Amino acid sequence: MIWASGWRLASAVSNKGGLGIIGAGSMYPEILREHIQKCKKATDKPFAVNVPMLYPDIDKIIEIIIEEGVRIVFTSAGNPKTWTKHLQSNGITVVHVVSSVKFALKSQEAGVDAIVAEGFEAGGHNGRDETTTFTLIPMVKEQLEIPLIAAGGIATGRGMLAAMVLGADAVQIGSRFVASNEASSHPNFKNKVVEAKEGDTQLTLKELAPVRMMKNKFFTEIQDLYKTAPTKEELISLLGRARAKKGMFEGDLDDGELEIGQISGLIHEIKPAAEIIQEIVTEFELAKQQVANF
Amino acid sequence: MIWASGWRLASAVSNKGGLGIIGAGSMYPEILREHIQKCKKATDKPFAVNVPMLYPDIDKIIEIIIEEGVRIVFTSAGNPKTWTKHLQSNGITVVHVVSSVKFALKSQEAGVDAIVAEGFEAGGHNGRDETTTFTLIPMVKEQLEIPLIAAGGIATGRGMLAAMVLGADAVQIGSRFVASNEASSHPNFKNKVVEAKEGDTQLTLKELAPVRMMKNKFFTEIQDLYKTAPTKEELISLLGRARAKKGMFEGDLDDGELEIGQISGLIHEIKPAAEIIQEIVTEFELAKQQVANF
Repeated sequence: MIWASGWRLASAVSNKGGLGIIGAGSMYPEILREHIQKCKKATDKPFAVNVPMLYPDIDKIIEIIIEEGVRIVFTSAGNPKTWTKHLQSNGITVVHVVSSVKFALKSQEAGVDAIVAEGFEAGGHNGRDETTTFTLIPMVKEQLEIPLIAAGGIATGRGMLAAMVLGADAVQIGSRFVASNEASSHPNFKNKVVEAKEGDTQLTLKELAPVRMMKNKFFTEIQDLYKTAPTKEELISLLGRARAKKGMFEGDLDDGELEIGQISGLIHEIKPAAEIIQEIVTEFELAKQQVANF
Repeated sequence: MIWASGWRLASAVSNKGGLGIIGAGSMYPEILREHIQKCKKATDKPFAVNVPMLYPDIDKIIEIIIEEGVRIVFTSAGNPKTWTKHLQSNGITVVHVVSSVKFALKSQEAGVDAIVAEGFEAGGHNGRDETTTFTLIPMVKEQLEIPLIAAGGIATGRGMLAAMVLGADAVQIGSRFVASNEASSHPNFKNKVVEAKEGDTQLTLKELAPVRMMKNKFFTEIQDLYKTAPTKEELISLLGRARAKKGMFEGDLDDGELEIGQISGLIHEIKPAAEIIQEIVTEFELAKQQVANF
């Protein structure tokens, strides 16, 4: 949700009863502080911050989160042992994002309060084992004792109910909110998301950090490079800098990296976040009733 | 389900109230006839035959199916236009297996009676779009008018219920029945399946026909070859002949191809097929009751 989930989206989600998450991955520390402060003004409900732990200014980010009184942090892309205790000793609930059973259990051992288990269908950065939501959730559930939040492929009330049937206690929804009025994503990208069809995304760049993106011109260039058995350096060189920003924030649909999940094929309209949440809840309740007749 | 689903497994499933399927993919025509005849003796319930349409003796296979009075055929790996009308004009219900929305709709247009939509997590041969069960089912459901059977990642009653919540009318279960007493798979392979953990399978050989298999010695050899940017011919040469038979039927766990789904990580015991079905149904009913409290 980098370049998508700033204070506007996070506060809109929290105000409607979800847990809004500010994605710190695309923010310099002082920009994050600004988003947290604006979010606090825009909602009196709890919200969270997602922190990729590979972030160069991670110390500063953590300091700001504590200073600003954020109550819930989602950590990802790193070792949960590094920051969990420090955050918790400052009264913060820590949720760690994983994509395998092994790392779910390691996160539990590191003392996190809950985990997000994210399937292969999720947009953006993704696990190496390619385990899908449908199989990952029950396999994690079988061994995990702490709360389990499912992610990857969930955009609707039916998706939420299915994930809970598979063993999730809650769900994390990304792609659906990229196509919201409040997302800070470029309108070109939002439009591309609602036009997406099944099969329009693919996981690639597995040698660097696996990432699911739309099959645009940039994606095709990556695939062409793969035909030459490239070195890691050649892949890094093609990737260059700020590709994600170029695509998702600046709206360059050809040369930018457009990170989105497979479920984009089921997303057809850009709407206010509150309407999206209302639709999900209404469909969830309806689906619950239908289950009784199965 | 090649090298796994002969008359013993198919009749056991049908006798317990499922629809048993004989997998013709690993059978010469006269072997298939024998399996059909034995299946008819072993059950008076309906059963089906799965026919990969790329099969060299496809004309002969279809002739035998009609002669032997099989009532339901699952076709895969080919154009559903080729055989659907002929089979239907002989009173046979035709179900076609696809892995994308596009081919689901093409199959409907070709007049098939139902489709199986199979996700990326499924074992064995698989689609190019890598769409997962969790996202494929609702996207197909949104556009399809004929009955929809979900496949890929389903091994339990919870999985069955989740697939139905996502829009499936029924489910097709493969991997779970490889670890059944009645499967004709080699005991070494069955044991390997119940020992499998999350992350132990991967989709590979995408340039030939994408196939999900266990990460054994043969799989590692494929990955090593990929590092050299191999030609298709080099991949075909490494694959050689009868790799699947060697692994799944002859029990060579190192040099054989071991086709199984991601959900193998959730399968822990070899059991009679009837017990597996009973467990699935019991868990399905229990999960239905639990949904009311979500």
